[in-house]
Amino acid sequence: MTGTMTIDQLTAEVERIFQAAGASELQARTVAEVIVAGERDGCASHGIYRIEGCLRTIEAGKVDVKAMPELDDDGSAVIRVRANGAYSVAGLAVGLPALAERARALGLAALVINDCTHFSALWPEVEQITALGLAGIAMCPSYATVAPAGGSKPLLGTNPLAFGWPRPGGRPYVFDFATSFMARGDVELHRIAGKPLPEGCAVDRDGNPTTDPQAALDGAMLPFGGHKGSAISTMIELMAGAMIGDMTSAEALDYLGTTTLAPKHGELLLAFCPERFAAGRADPFARAETLLEAIVGQGARLPSQRRFAARAQAEAEGIELSAEQMQMLARMRERVGLAG
Amino acid sequence: MTGTMTIDQLTAEVERIFQAAGASELQARTVAEVIVAGERDGCASHGIYRIEGCLRTIEAGKVDVKAMPELDDDGSAVIRVRANGAYSVAGLAVGLPALAERARALGLAALVINDCTHFSALWPEVEQITALGLAGIAMCPSYATVAPAGGSKPLLGTNPLAFGWPRPGGRPYVFDFATSFMARGDVELHRIAGKPLPEGCAVDRDGNPTTDPQAALDGAMLPFGGHKGSAISTMIELMAGAMIGDMTSAEALDYLGTTTLAPKHGELLLAFCPERFAAGRADPFARAETLLEAIVGQGARLPSQRRFAARAQAEAEGIELSAEQMQMLARMRERVGLAG
Repeated sequence: MTGTMTIDQLTAEVERIFQAAGASELQARTVAEVIVAGERDGCASHGIYRIEGCLRTIEAGKVDVKAMPELDDDGSAVIRVRANGAYSVAGLAVGLPALAERARALGLAALVINDCTHFSALWPEVEQITALGLAGIAMCPSYATVAPAGGSKPLLGTNPLAFGWPRPGGRPYVFDFATSFMARGDVELHRIAGKPLPEGCAVDRDGNPTTDPQAALDGAMLPFGGHKGSAISTMIELMAGAMIGDMTSAEALDYLGTTTLAPKHGELLLAFCPERFAAGRADPFARAETLLEAIVGQGARLPSQRRFAARAQAEAEGIELSAEQMQMLARMRERVGLAG
Repeated sequence: MTGTMTIDQLTAEVERIFQAAGASELQARTVAEVIVAGERDGCASHGIYRIEGCLRTIEAGKVDVKAMPELDDDGSAVIRVRANGAYSVAGLAVGLPALAERARALGLAALVINDCTHFSALWPEVEQITALGLAGIAMCPSYATVAPAGGSKPLLGTNPLAFGWPRPGGRPYVFDFATSFMARGDVELHRIAGKPLPEGCAVDRDGNPTTDPQAALDGAMLPFGGHKGSAISTMIELMAGAMIGDMTSAEALDYLGTTTLAPKHGELLLAFCPERFAAGRADPFARAETLLEAIVGQGARLPSQRRFAARAQAEAEGIELSAEQMQMLARMRERVGLAG
């Protein structure tokens, strides 16, 4: 049986599952919000299908869903949250007010989240920054599954990079992508479908280029954009790993010993106050609109346009769930001991 | 007749040419330093060959080589330099001490350079940040010569992005690249050599993919890495153009009306204090070394390795100039009225 739920109904449902799995109120709420945001925006790979992986990580004891992230604010431009093993989104919830306040006061500020368990996409996080009228950047390592350009062995993560710019009266400009040629989940999907990978995507375990998904999973993925993407991925390891005193992708994989659970490491977010940067020289938002409208005006797409269309539909008509999804939700309820 | 000069000798020589062309002491020195840094590092495209273009920009009145950049420091994390038409490197010289002081005091800080004339690569700038023990990012728009992914008309610039990480006791980790598939100068070189461009590099004026350099110059270049590179290039327009109250690449081209002179716009630099970010959790530099050594250990190259090798040779043996280069220097001396 299929079903339709409002965004709020589905969020409450997912929140209930996580609470029953032992999660604190904050963690259950923030994880439910980000999972439902994925479903709402038509990002199946970050939607309610993620619940099972989260429960597996909880059951394996690799995330502390009772932990309370702690804010460490010394008044500088670097706000820190010690997540103590909690999910990154809970860490963000604890640090975001200070990050925003400091970015407005100083012009820019950073939020370091240490010791968090990571599973969400970064766009819901930068959208929380743009919702406050600030521009935002987010980045984090992941697991060592990507070889540096010219190399042959997994060392870098798929290392996502996200950026958001607030657009007055509309959805923000947001991008969020893996700095690998392909997300690891997409390589899996190619393997399941028996489809070859595009050229330049991966090397086998001997370092030779391959289009075979299984050989790629046994070998290493490659960064997007050749040596340029590789350099950006390395920057993310340095800034959101080494610099913040947290694990690089290689260290995260060593620590966990598997790529089937959500990785534990740190995350770096930056927030910029456009009015402070423009300092009255010009209206930064108006200049940005001229640029963004010119992109759309020549028939190119802005990143996230498809997500925002799905969101508008979900807001208006609710989220439609397939029979399979309804069954999965029922299974998850059962798994955490909730009556149907 | 070929010649060999020490780095200092060549710098003094170039400085003398710019002073004779009317440049202030600060501008002559900083421009000479960055041009000789290019020559020293084997980057012919940013070496002494640039002198002629600079003199042309000066003669066209499109850079104010007498202007003194002004520091505007309100104690926040955003340091501003109003370059008043001076070269960006002179602006950096004026803002760098405050940027570094603020990054150490607050953890991170930004330097906005407004109304500067831009011609240098960004790596000499981020290397000035890493030389102070800080990590640095630099970005700026350029001219509208690049179409957004999926588009057909020039709108974005080649928008360079540079990053530097200080390595104790050695050369820093530094990358600096155009976010276009190819630098515009390289397209020119392909045209002169009659060589086709690689696939995916450019579109003709009707928006069709082309490998013909002239058709590409008449049409538009494309960003590196498809929609991901396009998103990063757009981010640079937003942050280092709109956000800092300065021109985007489209506005810079409108203002100047040609791509044959150095563009006038702004630049954004960020400086990060790794010790502040790590906050005693771990040694950020040691963790970074583990990563960087693992990259080299699997046979991959770090960006800038070739430059650093050329630099080591220039430091030890001086810079060798071809007969053509010696003649060019003589012509430049004549052009600014210096006796041979």
